[in-house]
Amino acid sequence: MVSSVGIVSAQRAQFDTPLQFKSGAVLPRYELVYETYGTLNADRSNAILICHALSGHHHVAGYYADEPKNIGWWDNMVGPGKPIDTDKFFVVGLNNLGGCHGSTGPNSVNPETGKPYGSSFPVITVEDWVESQARLADYLGIQQFAAVIGGSLGGMQAQQWSLAYPERVRHVLAIASAPRLTAQNIAFNDVARNAILTDPDFHGGDYYAHGVVPTRGLRLARMLGHITYLSDDAMADKFGRELRVEKLNYGFEVEFEIESYLRYQGDKFAAYFDANTYLLMTKALDYFDPAHAFAGDLNKAFATARADFLVVSFTTDWRFSPERSREIVRPLLHNRRNVSYAEITSAHGHDSFLMPDPHYLDVMYAYLNNIHRENAA
Amino acid sequence: MVSSVGIVSAQRAQFDTPLQFKSGAVLPRYELVYETYGTLNADRSNAILICHALSGHHHVAGYYADEPKNIGWWDNMVGPGKPIDTDKFFVVGLNNLGGCHGSTGPNSVNPETGKPYGSSFPVITVEDWVESQARLADYLGIQQFAAVIGGSLGGMQAQQWSLAYPERVRHVLAIASAPRLTAQNIAFNDVARNAILTDPDFHGGDYYAHGVVPTRGLRLARMLGHITYLSDDAMADKFGRELRVEKLNYGFEVEFEIESYLRYQGDKFAAYFDANTYLLMTKALDYFDPAHAFAGDLNKAFATARADFLVVSFTTDWRFSPERSREIVRPLLHNRRNVSYAEITSAHGHDSFLMPDPHYLDVMYAYLNNIHRENAA
Repeated sequence: MVSSVGIVSAQRAQFDTPLQFKSGAVLPRYELVYETYGTLNADRSNAILICHALSGHHHVAGYYADEPKNIGWWDNMVGPGKPIDTDKFFVVGLNNLGGCHGSTGPNSVNPETGKPYGSSFPVITVEDWVESQARLADYLGIQQFAAVIGGSLGGMQAQQWSLAYPERVRHVLAIASAPRLTAQNIAFNDVARNAILTDPDFHGGDYYAHGVVPTRGLRLARMLGHITYLSDDAMADKFGRELRVEKLNYGFEVEFEIESYLRYQGDKFAAYFDANTYLLMTKALDYFDPAHAFAGDLNKAFATARADFLVVSFTTDWRFSPERSREIVRPLLHNRRNVSYAEITSAHGHDSFLMPDPHYLDVMYAYLNNIHRENAA
Repeated sequence: MVSSVGIVSAQRAQFDTPLQFKSGAVLPRYELVYETYGTLNADRSNAILICHALSGHHHVAGYYADEPKNIGWWDNMVGPGKPIDTDKFFVVGLNNLGGCHGSTGPNSVNPETGKPYGSSFPVITVEDWVESQARLADYLGIQQFAAVIGGSLGGMQAQQWSLAYPERVRHVLAIASAPRLTAQNIAFNDVARNAILTDPDFHGGDYYAHGVVPTRGLRLARMLGHITYLSDDAMADKFGRELRVEKLNYGFEVEFEIESYLRYQGDKFAAYFDANTYLLMTKALDYFDPAHAFAGDLNKAFATARADFLVVSFTTDWRFSPERSREIVRPLLHNRRNVSYAEITSAHGHDSFLMPDPHYLDVMYAYLNNIHRENAA
């Protein structure tokens, strides 16, 4: 019986041991907001960590008592009877450090100054996130995750878990991800960042003090993002050249449906997301490159991984194309790891990893059910 | 013997008959800047019109006496012994109406007000351009072009010539073009436009009076454009993840080579191109859709074409993919027109149409040499 995890509530964990970032910066203390679903079993072997992507957060499944329409971003994947089955697993979702959904980030008040961190919040990396997530695991009494799962930027964190903590994760599920970004992907991120950085309301990242928000830049960043999350064909099918207006107005207001969609998405995002967090997230994406320390050799980078892997890609995803996923598979095979690879035929581009495609859900269900069986054995 | 057309100079033509735009707006008078290369033959049958794309202009080939390094944008294609051979053809290049390289456009002074047109310059369409180009042909005494040639947006003008003036053009060469934009392409244009429109220095298009230019927006538009003009692979080969700096600086300054390239291109473009012209050019791209009047039926749209066609696409061009070029070919075949189609293997994405790829140049040379022979026969 497939159902929702139902009413959930966010929790907070406070960490008072200073965290040194890869950049050298030190955060003396921080908080992480997280949610859990399901029950940790007696031997604490059924925990799964969900790592979020650029605009995600800790609210992965279920809904809040006072906000019944605020449903978790991966509710089609996580719940009783669903692929990440909360009847079998204890599932943890968190808002990453540097985020803007409750965990300590640029828009949090720095207790040392009484003002928002703003530009003083350190640039954070995937490695730093995994370190902070390992501390959260300690806090929750989880020595080893049955699986760490993530899509896109979340998949990078899942990979990093197997490299930083090979003994603390049995399975990595890296979905619509890559072992490092291409120049094109960095380029898209850089345009998005420049839209924010050059917005006169950005004020070098300390816009909070000015009572403004770099809405224009954040809106442009999100509009551009949306183009790259959808496939060309999906966009053509959904919007084509349909007009929003009765006839062309020969001006620069919205005319085509696609323009209306993008501007709506941009406005919606700019109203709630923090621009500094957006900058941090895109930098974390750009920086992730486990092969960098090995002169670009991914085979060497993955030599220390011990986890089994499921790598999933989607045929029409051009932002993180199947070839990028195969770049994760190949070094794992080279190192004789157990790796399963599924290339899902889906029309929805990069967004496919969030969609309830039956084939995709089946692959996830089967793989996770095997983890459950091996756990029970 | 392949050589340059050498020293060239721009000329101006003044038109005092009002031009009614497709929007209904009327421009009482206007000027077009143009260049010509080669010699019009006695029966005036060897004229070729070159239509430019988004950021192009009239300076197609050769160089200026006082600016020897200012070489025309298609100098590898146009000149003595080159595919568009100025020993055989009389070649005309112009700056389109609404442009910012000398023809009447938003940054020109409106004689009726003594101020730049700015926001009062009408939104212009491919159809309007072809109308203005036909008047330029009249002015030059050219009743019929041997060929009208263009890449990208220029290819749309070339197509439109065959629809608006079927008796005035014998051959159409549409390169890296499309019979209409897809939703994705409109989306990219809309993000670029929004970058300009929301720049506080835009002032509703009348920034000239404020002594400012919406540099930030234009810069972002160009950065984004460049990503889409190159192929993913070409970008990876050229830039990869190479760093511009010695080591990561964990900040938002330029770090990767690709960032340096994009920002340089953005800055360079924003320093000379007019933002209002950029808006007009992208709208002309979005609006072009000869099938619109035929309920989307391209077969019907091309029924009146009489010209022979050469359609050229490039394998790695994802902004105007080969499939878009085939959308020009199919309705022409349906209407039993003579159409040749060449899909060139090239690594350079949409920019390929400007590159001296030998196969591409050979195809162009052969096709144009046949025009010359049929002309001489």
